[in-house]
Amino acid sequence: MAKALALAQKGDGRTSPNPMVGCVIVKNGQIISEGYHEHVGGYHAERNALLHCAEDPAGADLYVTLEPCCHTGRTPPCTDIIIEKNIARVFVGALDVNPKVAGKGVKQLRDAGIEVITGILEDQCRKCNEVFEYYMTTHLPFVDAKYAMTLDGKIATVSGDSQWVSGEASRQAVHRLRRHYKGIMCGIGTVLSDDPMLNCRIANSIDPVRIVCDTHLRLPIDAALVQTASDIPMWVIAGPEADPDKKSVLEDCGVQVITCGLDKNGQIDLKQALRILADREIDGILLEGGSTLMGAAFKAHLVNKVHAFIAPKVIGGSGAPSPVGGTGVEKMSQAVQLRKMTLTSYDRDFCITGCPQYV
Amino acid sequence: MAKALALAQKGDGRTSPNPMVGCVIVKNGQIISEGYHEHVGGYHAERNALLHCAEDPAGADLYVTLEPCCHTGRTPPCTDIIIEKNIARVFVGALDVNPKVAGKGVKQLRDAGIEVITGILEDQCRKCNEVFEYYMTTHLPFVDAKYAMTLDGKIATVSGDSQWVSGEASRQAVHRLRRHYKGIMCGIGTVLSDDPMLNCRIANSIDPVRIVCDTHLRLPIDAALVQTASDIPMWVIAGPEADPDKKSVLEDCGVQVITCGLDKNGQIDLKQALRILADREIDGILLEGGSTLMGAAFKAHLVNKVHAFIAPKVIGGSGAPSPVGGTGVEKMSQAVQLRKMTLTSYDRDFCITGCPQYV
Repeated sequence: MAKALALAQKGDGRTSPNPMVGCVIVKNGQIISEGYHEHVGGYHAERNALLHCAEDPAGADLYVTLEPCCHTGRTPPCTDIIIEKNIARVFVGALDVNPKVAGKGVKQLRDAGIEVITGILEDQCRKCNEVFEYYMTTHLPFVDAKYAMTLDGKIATVSGDSQWVSGEASRQAVHRLRRHYKGIMCGIGTVLSDDPMLNCRIANSIDPVRIVCDTHLRLPIDAALVQTASDIPMWVIAGPEADPDKKSVLEDCGVQVITCGLDKNGQIDLKQALRILADREIDGILLEGGSTLMGAAFKAHLVNKVHAFIAPKVIGGSGAPSPVGGTGVEKMSQAVQLRKMTLTSYDRDFCITGCPQYV
Repeated sequence: MAKALALAQKGDGRTSPNPMVGCVIVKNGQIISEGYHEHVGGYHAERNALLHCAEDPAGADLYVTLEPCCHTGRTPPCTDIIIEKNIARVFVGALDVNPKVAGKGVKQLRDAGIEVITGILEDQCRKCNEVFEYYMTTHLPFVDAKYAMTLDGKIATVSGDSQWVSGEASRQAVHRLRRHYKGIMCGIGTVLSDDPMLNCRIANSIDPVRIVCDTHLRLPIDAALVQTASDIPMWVIAGPEADPDKKSVLEDCGVQVITCGLDKNGQIDLKQALRILADREIDGILLEGGSTLMGAAFKAHLVNKVHAFIAPKVIGGSGAPSPVGGTGVEKMSQAVQLRKMTLTSYDRDFCITGCPQYV
C-alpha cells in the first residue's frame, strides 16, 4: 500500500477534481503491475494497472489507495474490470466519500465473491486526498493559507518591502504547493503592492487558476496577472457594484469576472465566493494573502490548513504587517487552535503546518 | 568530557558572574572523582573534584570543561592544586577568555611538566559559557530576547489580551531561562499592561534581578514588582528627567533606581544601560519585551540570542502587537539574520532559537 500511495502522488496537480489514486497488483509474492490516476479524464489507477500486467492477474491481490469506483463517470467503473480479471483479493486504503461510491464499490466486489480488506494505511490514504474528501463532502474548496513571515511575525517591512522574506528552497516549496491546488487566491491589495504572476514555476506542471478578490475592480490593466490572462486562467471576484466598464475591459483581456455578494463589512462574502468556485470545479485553493483576506478567511472559518514559512530573520517595526490581519479576536482564548502540526525545514527556513480546528 | 559538561550544567543559575565548569578525574580507566563549580564563592570544579577522590589522584587524567584558573580570585588558583596532586594529564574543553587566565593556566601546567590537551568538545564547552565569554570580552551583558507569539506572529490580541499565548510546557521552559540569567528585563509598557512578577518559579533557584526600563518612572507603587522589591531585587532604569519624588517613594519600597542617559528618540540609551548593569555584575539578561524595547534592542545590535516560542494558534487582527516593534528596518535586505538555529518542541508549541549576526 505504501508503494500504491507513492504512485498516487505522481498524479499530484493533474487529477483535480478527481482524487489521486495509486494501485499495485501482486501475484505469488511478485508485483506484476502498477498504475496510478495520471490525469483527469484518463483511466483510473486500477484500470491502468490491470491493463498492463506482466502476467494474467487472475487470482492476484490488488492494492488500491481509494475504494474502486462503481459508477460511470468520465471513464467506466473500476469494479467491473476487477471482477472481469478475476482478482482474488482487494486491499483498500480509504473508502470513497463520493456519495456515488461510498461503500458501494466494496459491496459490489464482495457480492462478486472477491475478498475485500479495507482500512490499510487509511490515515495516509485519506490525507493524500484531503482536498478531494473535503470538496466532496462540503462542496467548498479546501483552503490552504500560505504565508512567509520573519521570526518576528512580519510579512513585509514598515515600508511594505517583502522581497524576499523566505529563501529559495521555501519558494520552490511554494511552487510545489501551487501545483497541488487547482486554484490560487489573493486579495487586490497584494496585487497592487507586489504585481505577482501567481504561476507555478515547475516544468510540465499545470498552472493553477489565479483568483483575485477585488470588490471594486481596482485590478490594473497592466498588472502581470491581466497581461498573461490569455495564457493562464485569471478570474476576478468582484462585488455587485463594480464598474461594468472596467469589467468589460478586463474581460477583453481574457479575465473572467465573477460577481459575488458582500459581507456585512462591505467585502466579498468569502463563503459565497468559495461556493461559486466549487461550482466551477475548484476543489482546492492556495490562499496567498494578503493580511486582510487571510483575516477574513480565518474569521469565517474557511481555512482548512496553514503553511507558515518562517525565515530566520528579524526586521522589527510596529507598523510592519503581519500575515493574518482583519479584525481578529478579542481574547486569546478565542484563538483558532491548530491540530496535526508538522514541521519541515527548507534550507534555513522552517515551515510549520497545521489544520485549524473550529469550535 | 561529556560527563564534565553535564556536571557543569548543574551549576546553572548559581555561578554568575563566574562560568559553569565541570570536572572528572579518571585513573586506570575508572572515574575516581567528579566535581563542578556549585555556586559563586564556592570552590571551582577542579578543586571540588580533587578534594574528594576515591583514591590518590597522582598520575590520573583530569577532564575539565574550562581552562583551570591560575589567579587568586574568590578562591585560590586551580593550577596549584592540580600540580600539587601530581595529575599526569589535563584535558581542557575551552580556553578561558578571562584576560587573567587566557592560556596562562595551560602554560603553568605545562611548565610544571603536566601534559595538557586542549579543545576537547570545545564548541559545546564554549556554548555552555556563552554568557560568561561575551561578558568577559565586551563588558556588556549577554542579552537573550525571549517572546511567545501565535503562529500568525502576534504577542497579544487587538484588545491587548496575552494570557496565554504559549502552553504550560513553554512557560516552564521560560522559568528555566530565567534561572539561567542573572537579570531579567522588560519595558514599562509590559509592566503597566501585565503587572508581571518576573520571578523564577523553580524550587531552590535564585530569582534573577528584575530590571524595568522606565524613562519617566511611570512604575506604579502597587505593581507586583514593587510590592515584592524587599524580597526579590528590583531595579528601575530611569531617564535623567524622572521625578525625584517618585524616585524616593520607589526607593522606600526597596526598588533601586538607576539613572541613565537617553537616546535620540528620548528613550533609555540601552547600550549605556547595559554598561551600567555590567558594572553591577549583571553578565546576562533575559529580555522579555515588550515590543518597543525589543525593537530598540535589535536596532542597537544588543541582542545576542533569540528564543521565539510559537504557539499553534491564529488570532488575526491588523492592530495586534508583534514581538519586535519600534521603527524597524526599511528594506527586507536589511533584516537582522540569525545563525545557529535550533528548534525544540514544548508540548504543542515550538521554540526556535538563533543568534543575530550583525553586519
